[in-house]
Amino acid sequence: MSLSFLDLPIVLAPMGGASTLELVAAVSNAGGFGILPCAYSTPEQITTQVSQLRRATRRPFGVNLFVESRPSVVDAHDVARAHDRLRAYREELGIVHTPQPAVPPDHYRGQIDAVLKARPDVFTFTFGIPDRDTLTRFRDLGIFTIGTATTVDEAVALADAGVDGLFAQGSEAGAHRGTFLAPVEASLIGTLALVPQVVDATHLPVFAAGGIGDGRAVAAVLALGAVAAAIGTSFLLAAESGIAVAYRNALRSKRSTDTVLTRAFSGRTARGMANRLTQELRDPDDIAPYPFQNAITRDIRTAAGEQGRSDFLSLWAGQAAKLAKEAPAADIVAELMQEAQARAECVTETLLASSSLLGRKNRQYELRKDPIRAIVFRRPST
Amino acid sequence: MSLSFLDLPIVLAPMGGASTLELVAAVSNAGGFGILPCAYSTPEQITTQVSQLRRATRRPFGVNLFVESRPSVVDAHDVARAHDRLRAYREELGIVHTPQPAVPPDHYRGQIDAVLKARPDVFTFTFGIPDRDTLTRFRDLGIFTIGTATTVDEAVALADAGVDGLFAQGSEAGAHRGTFLAPVEASLIGTLALVPQVVDATHLPVFAAGGIGDGRAVAAVLALGAVAAAIGTSFLLAAESGIAVAYRNALRSKRSTDTVLTRAFSGRTARGMANRLTQELRDPDDIAPYPFQNAITRDIRTAAGEQGRSDFLSLWAGQAAKLAKEAPAADIVAELMQEAQARAECVTETLLASSSLLGRKNRQYELRKDPIRAIVFRRPST
Repeated sequence: MSLSFLDLPIVLAPMGGASTLELVAAVSNAGGFGILPCAYSTPEQITTQVSQLRRATRRPFGVNLFVESRPSVVDAHDVARAHDRLRAYREELGIVHTPQPAVPPDHYRGQIDAVLKARPDVFTFTFGIPDRDTLTRFRDLGIFTIGTATTVDEAVALADAGVDGLFAQGSEAGAHRGTFLAPVEASLIGTLALVPQVVDATHLPVFAAGGIGDGRAVAAVLALGAVAAAIGTSFLLAAESGIAVAYRNALRSKRSTDTVLTRAFSGRTARGMANRLTQELRDPDDIAPYPFQNAITRDIRTAAGEQGRSDFLSLWAGQAAKLAKEAPAADIVAELMQEAQARAECVTETLLASSSLLGRKNRQYELRKDPIRAIVFRRPST
Repeated sequence: MSLSFLDLPIVLAPMGGASTLELVAAVSNAGGFGILPCAYSTPEQITTQVSQLRRATRRPFGVNLFVESRPSVVDAHDVARAHDRLRAYREELGIVHTPQPAVPPDHYRGQIDAVLKARPDVFTFTFGIPDRDTLTRFRDLGIFTIGTATTVDEAVALADAGVDGLFAQGSEAGAHRGTFLAPVEASLIGTLALVPQVVDATHLPVFAAGGIGDGRAVAAVLALGAVAAAIGTSFLLAAESGIAVAYRNALRSKRSTDTVLTRAFSGRTARGMANRLTQELRDPDDIAPYPFQNAITRDIRTAAGEQGRSDFLSLWAGQAAKLAKEAPAADIVAELMQEAQARAECVTETLLASSSLLGRKNRQYELRKDPIRAIVFRRPST
């Protein structure tokens, strides 16, 4: 598979609830690569959204789904208890506490079929590995597949399954951890350490994700061997972003540097700004497994957004959230590229300069630049 | 203060128990900047070691101390319980379980005086901020001071105290977390996210630490705005490294990718390879505060090293430990520089080529992979 969908090494990470069609189209139109988050969409919505996106951009884009990771057995009492634990919040928000917990949709197969039918350039997925038949169907249609790895073991498992590329999601990343093999706590590897090891272990195109706040980090992850930087949080303040005003205000504030890992909102561990819900919903017994927790907190998150209350919103953000800027997405893409280029040139000059400095100051080694590109250390002839 | 001590942007992070005088001298002699770990040395040892180091290199080097962080009140029962918790391990190792726990030395003031008298080019410190008078004494002697920050708040506090430079220690880093303001769990920020924010918040020279396994990451942290890469783990397999054989073997094995944060060895949180002690000593009630835990586990660590048993050794390692190579330190420095330079040039070319696409919307572009792994973006010839 070729990387012909990738012009600039800038990918808009799929952000459910934040990545509007306008944002995805704007990033793709600016030369980046937009990915439409479809994990929370019905099959019908996927069909409609991809069709709308095609009218908004003639450039390539991707679609993201969560691989089905519903537990095979769910204790209804656990879900009911988690639902009841939210009663006080509903009262505070003035919304109805239904007797029965909301039930998450069970439409993964339909989603897959809808994506295959919609034929985006790229299919990306999170939380695991689709079964062999599913991956084969994408391959047969020439759709480039990208899985999400948070450890080298996950990267190797995905490579073995035949994916075409990998997101290497470092511990800095905002929103859901893609972890699917070891426990999340044992799978928190910084992007700087993760990316080179995933490159070495798989030799696949790696899209670095996590902590990429501006062009400096874009240059950095390319130096690590990534083919592109996957950026979420730094597009959250884009003009086209769909986040609630309270979320936007939190991102603009000093709070943005205080992120935590929480299962409170969806039942799966995700990184976001600390707020009342992340502080008060910590006991595992209070939280239903994914996707049940996600279903039962939806009414609360919706009401909180409408009422401008950030204390009950999932305020997903990565550890470089402070670096997010408010601008049209196209300007953000352009600035990322300009800054990355300036930094890369600066580093190249610095390394050249320090090499020649060494040649003068230190008599033990002479350093020269060879005609190709390597720096060669050699002992002086004397 | 000038950075005249820094020729190549490669710093040997201070590694107590691993950084021999030979290793520090070798890195400095190769054009890098060696830092001698003195946290566990007596004032007399500091005097002797610095004097020996001066004979081993005519190039600049630094010295590191832990800022005094002994709790003002220590419950003797807590220490005794932690000591007794180790009885079974001593039996297993065949060493004496003393009736009284070992007492950590209380010689911080003497260490400071010894470092001032030894006058290294650079004084680096960890675990907090020395008092104002102490920092003034270093400043008056023209000794460059570098503090250690794991968060932006710590970086700002150190800058306010008047340090000349900062280690920005990302969550990937091996060995002790330098954290001194918020709890460690709330201070685990990936290097990729931390460095640019520390640069922005302080405008001081930043030495990036954590997860820098090879030249790719050296180029990356320079792109992030660091003046140099501080590297520990990737010097652990250097010929001059002083680690025990069992530790060296663990680093060479697949175990090296499995690091955990533990307080088992010193009472302070540090990152190392998982082993029996990190697995079995997890209950906070079993662990005395630093430096008491460090004192009471010393005989166990020493015996384990002598007996070639990695299960009771502190196997400090960062998250990029897999990338460590066995070679003389000078060769490691040279290879770091060569790889960093090659990567920086590659990224510069990539970004230059792709930035020509900026602004050219709705055009199809062609992407190909060139023979040396660089991704080259170019417009179609038509």
